[in-house]
Amino acid sequence: MKYNSFQTPERRLLGAGPTNLYPEISKSLTKPEVGHLDPKFVEMMDEVKSMLRYLFQTKNEFTIAISAPGSAGMEASFVNLVEPGDKVIVCVNGLFGGRMVENVERIGGEAIVVNDEWGDPVSLDKLEDALKKNPDTSVVAFVHAETSTGVRSDAKEIAEIAKKYDCLVIADTVTSFTGIPVLTDEWGLDAVYSGSQKCLSCVPGLSPLTFSDKAIEKIKKRDSKIQSWFLDQTLVLDYWSGQGKRSYHHTAPINSIFALHEALRLACDETLENLWKRHFDAHLRLKKGLDEMSFDFVVEKQYRLPQMNSIHIPDGYDDFEIRTKLLNDYNLEIGAGLGKFAGKIWRIGLMGYNARNESVDYCLDSLKNVLNK
Amino acid sequence: MKYNSFQTPERRLLGAGPTNLYPEISKSLTKPEVGHLDPKFVEMMDEVKSMLRYLFQTKNEFTIAISAPGSAGMEASFVNLVEPGDKVIVCVNGLFGGRMVENVERIGGEAIVVNDEWGDPVSLDKLEDALKKNPDTSVVAFVHAETSTGVRSDAKEIAEIAKKYDCLVIADTVTSFTGIPVLTDEWGLDAVYSGSQKCLSCVPGLSPLTFSDKAIEKIKKRDSKIQSWFLDQTLVLDYWSGQGKRSYHHTAPINSIFALHEALRLACDETLENLWKRHFDAHLRLKKGLDEMSFDFVVEKQYRLPQMNSIHIPDGYDDFEIRTKLLNDYNLEIGAGLGKFAGKIWRIGLMGYNARNESVDYCLDSLKNVLNK
Repeated sequence: MKYNSFQTPERRLLGAGPTNLYPEISKSLTKPEVGHLDPKFVEMMDEVKSMLRYLFQTKNEFTIAISAPGSAGMEASFVNLVEPGDKVIVCVNGLFGGRMVENVERIGGEAIVVNDEWGDPVSLDKLEDALKKNPDTSVVAFVHAETSTGVRSDAKEIAEIAKKYDCLVIADTVTSFTGIPVLTDEWGLDAVYSGSQKCLSCVPGLSPLTFSDKAIEKIKKRDSKIQSWFLDQTLVLDYWSGQGKRSYHHTAPINSIFALHEALRLACDETLENLWKRHFDAHLRLKKGLDEMSFDFVVEKQYRLPQMNSIHIPDGYDDFEIRTKLLNDYNLEIGAGLGKFAGKIWRIGLMGYNARNESVDYCLDSLKNVLNK
Repeated sequence: MKYNSFQTPERRLLGAGPTNLYPEISKSLTKPEVGHLDPKFVEMMDEVKSMLRYLFQTKNEFTIAISAPGSAGMEASFVNLVEPGDKVIVCVNGLFGGRMVENVERIGGEAIVVNDEWGDPVSLDKLEDALKKNPDTSVVAFVHAETSTGVRSDAKEIAEIAKKYDCLVIADTVTSFTGIPVLTDEWGLDAVYSGSQKCLSCVPGLSPLTFSDKAIEKIKKRDSKIQSWFLDQTLVLDYWSGQGKRSYHHTAPINSIFALHEALRLACDETLENLWKRHFDAHLRLKKGLDEMSFDFVVEKQYRLPQMNSIHIPDGYDDFEIRTKLLNDYNLEIGAGLGKFAGKIWRIGLMGYNARNESVDYCLDSLKNVLNK
C-alpha cells in the first residue's frame, strides 16, 4: 500500500496550544535515539527534574514529567491523592474544573462542587463556605488558569484557605506554568501539574508534575491501591529517583523528553521574571489592538491571563466561517470557544514562542482583514 | 540558571526498544507544528487509522493510537473491557503477563492466572482447563510476544479456545506487531495493542490499539463508568471517528503522530510479508553467529521471536560489566534480563530499522571482542 509523507501546512498557532515550537526545540527532536535506561539519558533526566523545580518554584524531591498529555497529569494527581470515599472540593469555573469532577467521581471519591460562572475566578467566599460545611474534606482542587475562559484564579488565597482546613491542594497550571507566576512552595500547593505545549512551547504529550512531601506522605499512607497502574507514581518514583539503579516502569518517550529538556533549558536561561514580562507585554500589545477594533474581553481586567485572551465574537460574524478564513487565507489558528462558550468567544493564545510582537501584529492584521475592520 | 543542550551519544540500540529510528521518521518529527483539530491534521489521522488497519490485519472501525506508551495501551484495553467483578483469565509467562494481572486487580476484576514458566509459551491445555473450571469468565488476556523472555505464544489457538467459551480476547502485541504475523480478524482478537518503539522503529510514546465491534458492544453495554477518564475510549471515539466534527478530548502528541504516520507509511510500503521476512532473516544470521560462540537460547526453537533473542549469559561473565563495556566501548545497547531473569540472560532485539545484516554483524563482532570469543 502506498501512502505519501504528510505535508504539513505552515500555521501560526495562536490558539489554546499546541503553539509553534522554538526552533531549538524542533531541532532537538532529531537527536540520535538512546535507551531509556542509558546512563546518559538518566543524567539528562536529572537535569530535567532540577530545571522543573526552578520553574515550579519548588524544592519538592518528587518533580517529574508524566509520559502523556496534561489530562494524564490531572488524572495522575487525582488517582494518587484521592481514595474511594474521600471528600474533594472541586472549584469549577470552566471546562477543566468539570473534568476534575469527573476524575474524582471515577475514583469513587465524593466531589463537592464550588461553582462559579465561566469567565469568573474561583470565589474565595464560596470555597470557605464549602469547607465550613465539609470540614472532613481532604483535598481542594482548582484550575489556576482556566484555558476554556482565560481567567486566572487566586492560587495563593485558595491554598491559604484550604490549608486552614488541613486539606491537600491540587492545582492545574497547564496554561499558567511559565506564563504567569506559579509559586508552588510559597503558596503551599501539594500537587501541581502542567502541559508541555503551552507557555513552554514544547511538543505536546508530556505533563510536568510535582508533589509536595505532604502529598507523598498521603500516598504512602493510602489504604487502597492506586487504581491506575500506568499513573501509579509510587512505581515511577524508582525510575526518576536519581538514587541508585533505575528500575524499569515504562518506556519513556525519549524524543519528547529531548524536546522537554531543551524547552526547560531555554526557559531557565530566559528566567521566570523575563518570561512573565514577555507574556504580559505581548498581551498589552494585543489588547491595544483589540480595543481599537472594539472587541470585548470575556474576563475582567484583573483576572485576565496574558497568555490566553478570550474575546466575545462580535454580532454579525459567524464563528466557524471566520476561523476557517483565518486558517485558509492566513494560516492562522485561533482558539474556538469550548462547551457553553462554543460559537460565542474566540481565544487568542500568546504562549511561549508566540508571546512576541510579530505574532501579535500578524494576528491583529489578519483579524482586521478578515473582519473588514 | 544555565544548562547546556543535551549531547546524546550515538548508540546502536539492540535492546528491547526503543530502537534506532529510520532516518525518514527522525526527519518527520520536525515538520511545522499544527493544531490537533486542524483539518489537515485530521486528514492525516484518517490515514493513520487506515494504515494501522492494514498492519493489524483488521477491518475494525475502532483502530487508533493511544497518546501514551504501550503500558497505557494495555491499561486502556483492560479498563474499557473489564468491569469490577468480571472474571478475567490472564496467561502469565513473563513480566508483561504479570502486569496484566495488576491491571485486572486494580479495576476490581477477578484475575484467574494461568501460569507458565518464563521462556515457555502459554499452555493451551492449562488455558482450556481454567476455562472449564470458570465458564463465567468474560475475558482471556495473553501476551503474544513476551518481551521479557523472547517467547511467542500461539495467538490463533488461544483465541480459538477463548471463543469456545464466549470470551473476549485481549492480546498484547507490543513486540510482535509488524515483526511477525498479527492477524487480528482472522484469529478473532478483540482488543489488540502495541507500542510505537519496537518493530515499527518509531519514537516511543504511542500505543496503536484496535477494538473489535464485539469489544465496542461490550463497552457500550457497561454497567459501570470506565475508571480512567484519560483512557476512556468512548470519549476518544468522537475525536478519531472521522465522521463530522472532531470534538476535543486531549491535546494529541502532534510530533509523535507525525513520526507514527511516517513509520506506518514505511511499513505499508515495505508490506507485512517483507517485514516478517526481514526480521526472520536477521534472526537467522544472528543465530548462526551466536551458535558459533556457543550461546544457548532461552526459548525453544519453534517459539522463538526473531525480533527478540534471549540468550543465557555464559558462566564466568558478569552481566553488568559486559553490558557496560558494550555500551561504553562499542556504543551498543543490548537488553538486560528483567525480573527473575535479571543477571541471567541477555536480550538482543533486532527490530525494524535494526533488522538488517549490518546491525547483526556489528552486534556479533562487538560481543566477540568483549567476551574474547
